[in-house]
Amino acid sequence: MPHIELPEPDVGVLRRLPILIEGLKSRVGQDLLIVDEDGRRAYETDAFTAYRRVPMLVVLPRTTEEVSKILKYCHENDVKVIPRGAGTSLCGGSLPTEDAIVLCISKMNRVIEIDYANRLARLEAGITNLQITAEVAAGGFFYAPDPSSQLACTLAGNLAMNSGGAHCLKYGVTTHNVLGVKMVLIDGTVVEIGGSALERNGYDLLSLVIGSEGQLGVITEATVKLVPAPEGARPMMIGFRSPEAAGSCVSAIIAAGIIPVAIEYMDHAAIEVCEAFAGAGYPLDAEALLIVEVEGSEAEIGILLGRIAEIAARFDPKTVQISADAEQSARIWAGRKAAFGAIGRISDYLCMDGTIPLAQLPHALTRISQICAEYGLKVANIFHAGDGNLHPLILYDANSPEEAERAELAGETILKLCVELGGCLTGEHGVGIEKRELMTTQFSPTDLAVQMRIKTVFDPTWRLNPAKVFPLAITNVMRAGDAASTPEAA
Amino acid sequence: MPHIELPEPDVGVLRRLPILIEGLKSRVGQDLLIVDEDGRRAYETDAFTAYRRVPMLVVLPRTTEEVSKILKYCHENDVKVIPRGAGTSLCGGSLPTEDAIVLCISKMNRVIEIDYANRLARLEAGITNLQITAEVAAGGFFYAPDPSSQLACTLAGNLAMNSGGAHCLKYGVTTHNVLGVKMVLIDGTVVEIGGSALERNGYDLLSLVIGSEGQLGVITEATVKLVPAPEGARPMMIGFRSPEAAGSCVSAIIAAGIIPVAIEYMDHAAIEVCEAFAGAGYPLDAEALLIVEVEGSEAEIGILLGRIAEIAARFDPKTVQISADAEQSARIWAGRKAAFGAIGRISDYLCMDGTIPLAQLPHALTRISQICAEYGLKVANIFHAGDGNLHPLILYDANSPEEAERAELAGETILKLCVELGGCLTGEHGVGIEKRELMTTQFSPTDLAVQMRIKTVFDPTWRLNPAKVFPLAITNVMRAGDAASTPEAA
Repeated sequence: MPHIELPEPDVGVLRRLPILIEGLKSRVGQDLLIVDEDGRRAYETDAFTAYRRVPMLVVLPRTTEEVSKILKYCHENDVKVIPRGAGTSLCGGSLPTEDAIVLCISKMNRVIEIDYANRLARLEAGITNLQITAEVAAGGFFYAPDPSSQLACTLAGNLAMNSGGAHCLKYGVTTHNVLGVKMVLIDGTVVEIGGSALERNGYDLLSLVIGSEGQLGVITEATVKLVPAPEGARPMMIGFRSPEAAGSCVSAIIAAGIIPVAIEYMDHAAIEVCEAFAGAGYPLDAEALLIVEVEGSEAEIGILLGRIAEIAARFDPKTVQISADAEQSARIWAGRKAAFGAIGRISDYLCMDGTIPLAQLPHALTRISQICAEYGLKVANIFHAGDGNLHPLILYDANSPEEAERAELAGETILKLCVELGGCLTGEHGVGIEKRELMTTQFSPTDLAVQMRIKTVFDPTWRLNPAKVFPLAITNVMRAGDAASTPEAA
Repeated sequence: MPHIELPEPDVGVLRRLPILIEGLKSRVGQDLLIVDEDGRRAYETDAFTAYRRVPMLVVLPRTTEEVSKILKYCHENDVKVIPRGAGTSLCGGSLPTEDAIVLCISKMNRVIEIDYANRLARLEAGITNLQITAEVAAGGFFYAPDPSSQLACTLAGNLAMNSGGAHCLKYGVTTHNVLGVKMVLIDGTVVEIGGSALERNGYDLLSLVIGSEGQLGVITEATVKLVPAPEGARPMMIGFRSPEAAGSCVSAIIAAGIIPVAIEYMDHAAIEVCEAFAGAGYPLDAEALLIVEVEGSEAEIGILLGRIAEIAARFDPKTVQISADAEQSARIWAGRKAAFGAIGRISDYLCMDGTIPLAQLPHALTRISQICAEYGLKVANIFHAGDGNLHPLILYDANSPEEAERAELAGETILKLCVELGGCLTGEHGVGIEKRELMTTQFSPTDLAVQMRIKTVFDPTWRLNPAKVFPLAITNVMRAGDAASTPEAA
């Protein structure tokens, strides 16, 4: 996949490396630094594995004060900084450059305060997503965003990418579940954004910072909402004769005003692979499968699943099966959660992430199949259908550079289709380097210029997570000194 | 209330007025201009009526293109612009200055598109809040944010202030219900921010623009979410022996994981006044009253109200009454909605608007009573309790400048209390001029500097809705040329 250009390293910075190492040692101590090549190589890529660059240095701070000292030093010495959580980004969000320092906050993983009365928790940002829920489960609460990588991914990474997950249909994505953050600016200044109250005043900087892909500052702490665990939850499975019928059923459920916790979609290819892998009891004769989960008291669950079954009946389903017990529910979800791994067993794949307006779902599914067929590739569709967040998996052979190139072109065409249908380039994975050049398909030059000037407000010399989010050519112009001019110059 | 300083008009601009009028006439035509003093006087204040300034000119554009021409002309000719919807701001958000042009978009009130399949509507921003729901009610939908002024206030004003309302506990405030906007920058550039899909990519400029109080641009169109109207809804009333018991009951309902559509709180003073005015059937022997409304099917409503009654029983209530029918429900809400008017009949009042973390509710209510007693003033409390958004009404005699001053000082003390308890200065009314000088109690100089630099990105010469949101002294420094410097200079 050669068409994403990575910037050449700045040789001058590399030459200064021994001095920089000494400088950082004197400020934060030797223990935090990873200097040797084997150690640094562990940070050369993230879950977007096609690109690799070994960073010149890795730092693992344990406190906000240390993060502040590191950033201040890098700012004063013209060094780029790549913030990193667990490195599970699917779009190269934490890919280093060779002349950059990786600042990894995985050691900052403590719980600072749990406040059940106000239903919030204050946490260091290096804590893993699932650990947050583990800390509060005994109190009857959970943290709602649940990306598939939740066992490994950090809250910091979730904040950078505004992560969602299967349950975001009901509970929203990261931005809806965070009340405030502590963030270190590139010059070392520590700022508090938001707080512990539901509303915010002044400009809404918190929403701006969440999803800014580590380009505006390094978040070291966050105050998150705790959601009361429901009394119970139960999924049902509906197998359909066509993808269109399944898509229409999703629209109908939502249009009826029902908000399930999750509506997951799997096409025939995905059903087959997952069933073979997990034995989840999926209907192998269905062309498309919906897993719909609702929650509440037993009485509420019964009413809601009944209403959904009524709606589904209008779309001539092949099978409708309500989970009978906890054991069956667990099996249904195990199949879905193993999906990416199961498909990974049979083929390499490129996992796309775009969104569309819900009513376009049937049309989008048809077009995605056509696009992949045109490029001579197979596709498996597994995604959060309720909010129109698609994840087509384009299957290809990574040993064939030509096929890899075709897969990437098919992916690009699919993302452009999402924009064309009124959706956007990313639902929850972010832009990173993967979709950097596609930003011009969604945004006008003026839109991009305004966004880039905001980047400049926070990071005047563009040291933080550079060469991402914005098209490289535009970034270079911006960094060459256009930064302070007014919007009309764009 | 003399302590909010209004800036002196720029005499140079006033001298150029005849030329400016001719310039605007040649660009958008005479019909859009209000030049005569009587006409302009109608725009001298908003619902924060203590301050009045007659603007030098009023323009009423009908299209985005006209807004663009007007802003471009003002930008090129160094003229300040005050964007205005219906002028219902309670914090002076649309108060003019004498050397400014009021740009009122109330004529831009058309429905552009209603799209039930995707559950969204595209509207001109001058449409009134209630009209949106009126347009889609036949289709079984509604627009969720419902400020008390919804009959008059415009979507544009809701967007500027990120308005809430009684039902925002379940459905969120404006920012949660808007998918995209068309906005005109001060130099006349028209930008589209957000779109029609649920997720957004790039930096989250939409959240930044919503709630920015007309300081970043003039929004002319918006795409809003349509929410399916519930099958039914029903309120219950719970009368308590003390404000503390009512406050604790609110916390307990929320902590139990129940999300009613609304939890409204009224203290004894408010109960008495509203009951005398509206005959809503409120319990006159209660020290505090909660109106809790839930919605759904009849079965769901029954289950939820039953659970709430069980929880309320733990707080030794004096009365628990579930509405028996639609007629009784309407009467219960009529009392609440008439509250401000009813209190206005017996006294002048200052309506405060702060938020607190929910668990602080009982403590905050006690402290608010103490603060008002210390200033020798009475207070009535009526507010959206479920999300900790307080609206103490401080009663005073507007004919006594000394008492008005005391009322304002009491209000300031209450808002500082909100910040101290971990809340913030405004829940839904905004900062405007009212709370401008209090921003330093919530934000550090660095926080404010970052916010002000973002203002500068959108409006380099600070022409849009000036002298608001930020403390006047800091604004003057900023406008004097500090705008382009980096955060560490603050």
